[in-house]
Amino acid sequence: MPIDQRFFDYQGPQSLRALLAICGIESDDADDIEITGIASSQNAIEGDLCFFEGKASQAKSVSSRAAACFVKPAAAAGLPAGVIPIGTSHPRASHKLASEALYKLKDWQASGEAPSIHDTAIVAPTAFIGAGAAIGAGTTIGPGAAIGPGVQIGENSVIGANVCVRCALVGNHVKLYSGASIGEAGFGVTVGPEGAEDVPQWGRVIIQDHVTVGANTCIDRGAFSDTIIGERTKIDNLVQIAHNVVVGRNVMMASFTGISGTTQIGDGVVMGGRVGIADHVHIGAGAKLAASSGIFRDIPAGETWGGVPAKPLKQYLREVAWIQKQIAPKKTPK
Amino acid sequence: MPIDQRFFDYQGPQSLRALLAICGIESDDADDIEITGIASSQNAIEGDLCFFEGKASQAKSVSSRAAACFVKPAAAAGLPAGVIPIGTSHPRASHKLASEALYKLKDWQASGEAPSIHDTAIVAPTAFIGAGAAIGAGTTIGPGAAIGPGVQIGENSVIGANVCVRCALVGNHVKLYSGASIGEAGFGVTVGPEGAEDVPQWGRVIIQDHVTVGANTCIDRGAFSDTIIGERTKIDNLVQIAHNVVVGRNVMMASFTGISGTTQIGDGVVMGGRVGIADHVHIGAGAKLAASSGIFRDIPAGETWGGVPAKPLKQYLREVAWIQKQIAPKKTPK
Amino acid sequence: MPIDQRFFDYQGPQSLRALLAICGIESDDADDIEITGIASSQNAIEGDLCFFEGKASQAKSVSSRAAACFVKPAAAAGLPAGVIPIGTSHPRASHKLASEALYKLKDWQASGEAPSIHDTAIVAPTAFIGAGAAIGAGTTIGPGAAIGPGVQIGENSVIGANVCVRCALVGNHVKLYSGASIGEAGFGVTVGPEGAEDVPQWGRVIIQDHVTVGANTCIDRGAFSDTIIGERTKIDNLVQIAHNVVVGRNVMMASFTGISGTTQIGDGVVMGGRVGIADHVHIGAGAKLAASSGIFRDIPAGETWGGVPAKPLKQYLREVAWIQKQIAPKKTPK
Repeated sequence: MPIDQRFFDYQGPQSLRALLAICGIESDDADDIEITGIASSQNAIEGDLCFFEGKASQAKSVSSRAAACFVKPAAAAGLPAGVIPIGTSHPRASHKLASEALYKLKDWQASGEAPSIHDTAIVAPTAFIGAGAAIGAGTTIGPGAAIGPGVQIGENSVIGANVCVRCALVGNHVKLYSGASIGEAGFGVTVGPEGAEDVPQWGRVIIQDHVTVGANTCIDRGAFSDTIIGERTKIDNLVQIAHNVVVGRNVMMASFTGISGTTQIGDGVVMGGRVGIADHVHIGAGAKLAASSGIFRDIPAGETWGGVPAKPLKQYLREVAWIQKQIAPKKTPK
Repeated sequence: MPIDQRFFDYQGPQSLRALLAICGIESDDADDIEITGIASSQNAIEGDLCFFEGKASQAKSVSSRAAACFVKPAAAAGLPAGVIPIGTSHPRASHKLASEALYKLKDWQASGEAPSIHDTAIVAPTAFIGAGAAIGAGTTIGPGAAIGPGVQIGENSVIGANVCVRCALVGNHVKLYSGASIGEAGFGVTVGPEGAEDVPQWGRVIIQDHVTVGANTCIDRGAFSDTIIGERTKIDNLVQIAHNVVVGRNVMMASFTGISGTTQIGDGVVMGGRVGIADHVHIGAGAKLAASSGIFRDIPAGETWGGVPAKPLKQYLREVAWIQKQIAPKKTPK
Repeated sequence: MPIDQRFFDYQGPQSLRALLAICGIESDDADDIEITGIASSQNAIEGDLCFFEGKASQAKSVSSRAAACFVKPAAAAGLPAGVIPIGTSHPRASHKLASEALYKLKDWQASGEAPSIHDTAIVAPTAFIGAGAAIGAGTTIGPGAAIGPGVQIGENSVIGANVCVRCALVGNHVKLYSGASIGEAGFGVTVGPEGAEDVPQWGRVIIQDHVTVGANTCIDRGAFSDTIIGERTKIDNLVQIAHNVVVGRNVMMASFTGISGTTQIGDGVVMGGRVGIADHVHIGAGAKLAASSGIFRDIPAGETWGGVPAKPLKQYLREVAWIQKQIAPKKTPK
């Protein structure tokens, strides 16, 4: 997926050699190419620079269309033919440096075209609307709300007081309650030569029509793809949705639900309060997750699970009852 | 409880027939009445339109004073005499449509009388104070705080930076720390013909004297009644209190406490961090709830409970110790 | 540690007798001294007024340098020689009243010198910068951000939209994402004659270089010392860090992590989502805490723990497996 230039300023193509110099990596003089973009290792296309940190045996999973790839020396030989390997002890940290030379996140106050605000939209005087943003008919923007550069908000949506929205496309009839944070950087950390480093997040947040987002809830933008909230999904206060999460339609999430990166939630899933879901799992359509459960694996469609780590709810409740019986046996004559 | 017109604009009485037309429900021409208000099924009085979604056998619990009631056809015959039944497959979704024709939540920027701000109150230049709001003597309103139309704040209270308050009455000597969200819509969702729908929330938040509310904590307004926080209750950061919750005096709630809708908390209850409480339960006065516990039932006054699902703390700790013993038995000679 | 007068206004020395009058405590006329400061009982020095609420047998742990100490009458005799005992039924509540006569938290809009903003810093028009604050080179302050009086922010830091920072020193290359709340009062509550009382918080928050703080995360200032976040520590959204917590370098905390007061976290600790840690414990360097775990004790360096209450992860997983086996035994022939 190409980087959306409404949210990230493209610095233009650069020579691989120049990028490597930025990373402090020596390159021989014989071989240079033009790098035009960045991507994840699986989705890289012509001109893209990517990175690979997995096992050497899986280096062949890197897209064969990628121009070049940061990789640990031991895995370099496994890359597909045609992908230039760039050996480094910290592939992801090197990719961070190079990618930030190609793209820059637009600051809230980035200059650009005046925002386009429909005549029937109502914007509070203390709200902030960034350059190039668009606000649709009938939409209201509350006091202190911050709408970042390039953000698109549809019609008849209600953006509450002190809500922050950046790097996002928001549909019609959407409600974002006070203090919600949409589109900040996801929590991606790598270890570079100097210690922990944030890895840049180049994706967006897509909020479809009729979604409601509770007060002080956070939805992070994707890393290389988008975080997506499907139509009519209803989200309570103080929920956390991490980068790259894809949520279906008509999903309900109660307070303190936390969904880790790249997890997928099917249509109509219902979550009680304080449900935590690990990264990279898939919750099938119509599943129900009991309050306080901790989900560390895929859940089949339509099932009801509970507990930490979660199991089918009936089994969990049988365990709870069984343990209680062991400790406090009924005082009946034997 | 009547709807508070400081926070919701009353559109005036309407004919039942006109309201049904809005809902897409056909009505015969013979029978029409004037609807003057909306209420829950239990509290409806003369002129009120309500809804009932329970079991047919309990339809008689609907207030006999109600003018009319949206009800599933199978339960219609069970309503008290004199209540006009309005058969519909989605009673609550229909009621939503009709009620929004009778009342409208005032937008942050609703027009009206200039707010009344005491001479000794200090309001930051970037704060927003809505029409008809009142700020008492000695109260300070921090930068970026948003005080909605009609909100009443007493004396010597401290409203932090970027706090949002709407549909609320706030007492004296109250502190609301940065980013707290008071009075947003509770998380009420029903399923209508087109999928998930928010149900409107017509109540308020009442915060009594000497209450402290932590940073980024959320307290939702009630659905048809009020969410109430009793005197001297102290609430930590990042707590969630849902609609219609009634909290007593001198209650202490640590971070990540979540209290679901319509639950009641007695005086002097103490909650450790990360306590979750289900909806419609009652926590007796002076009860202590251990950190991380999940409460799904009433707790008697004065008791100490822990675990998920919670049980008396001593029993919970015995279970924890017993399980550990099964797995790692002491290596003693037999 | 002296109280930082950039954040708290010093009212000047006062006679002990005058302070006791404020507390409603009678004192005899013979003996009066000048009180110049306040402190915790362990760190009090000459001129300081402190309080002690522990067991009578431990009253000797109060600093012998303290000028005077609020103490329950039964423990008064145990104080070190030279410390004037002030008998009261509510030592901490009395200390609150006296300390608030010596120091006052500066309000957001406190008057003072104009803030010092570097030429290359970018401050959004709707941001608020308090008196005496300093913003370093290359730092950006987002729309609606509130920077309290006296706050010091270093170079090349990024303060997001609607972030609130007070009573804090923030380093270079720090990122605070939207809605984060830094430096509000920690959750300290005591019981006075009239019920629950907030105890004042006289410390600061120190955020070292290259720290990242997620959206709507809260970090409270210390009570009598500082809350400290070490270099390159990375904190996700919706995390709570209480007063006096000291976090090392390169620590990673996922969403809904909650760290209670005065706990210490070693370098390189990694926490999964929804980890809760009790107060006054120590997490050794390099420890790993599994998602959803609840920590109520010290954790040795380098170990991996999980569960509630937490135990070594392997043991926890064996327990989980053992319980499951009891309830659903394999149907194998006996």
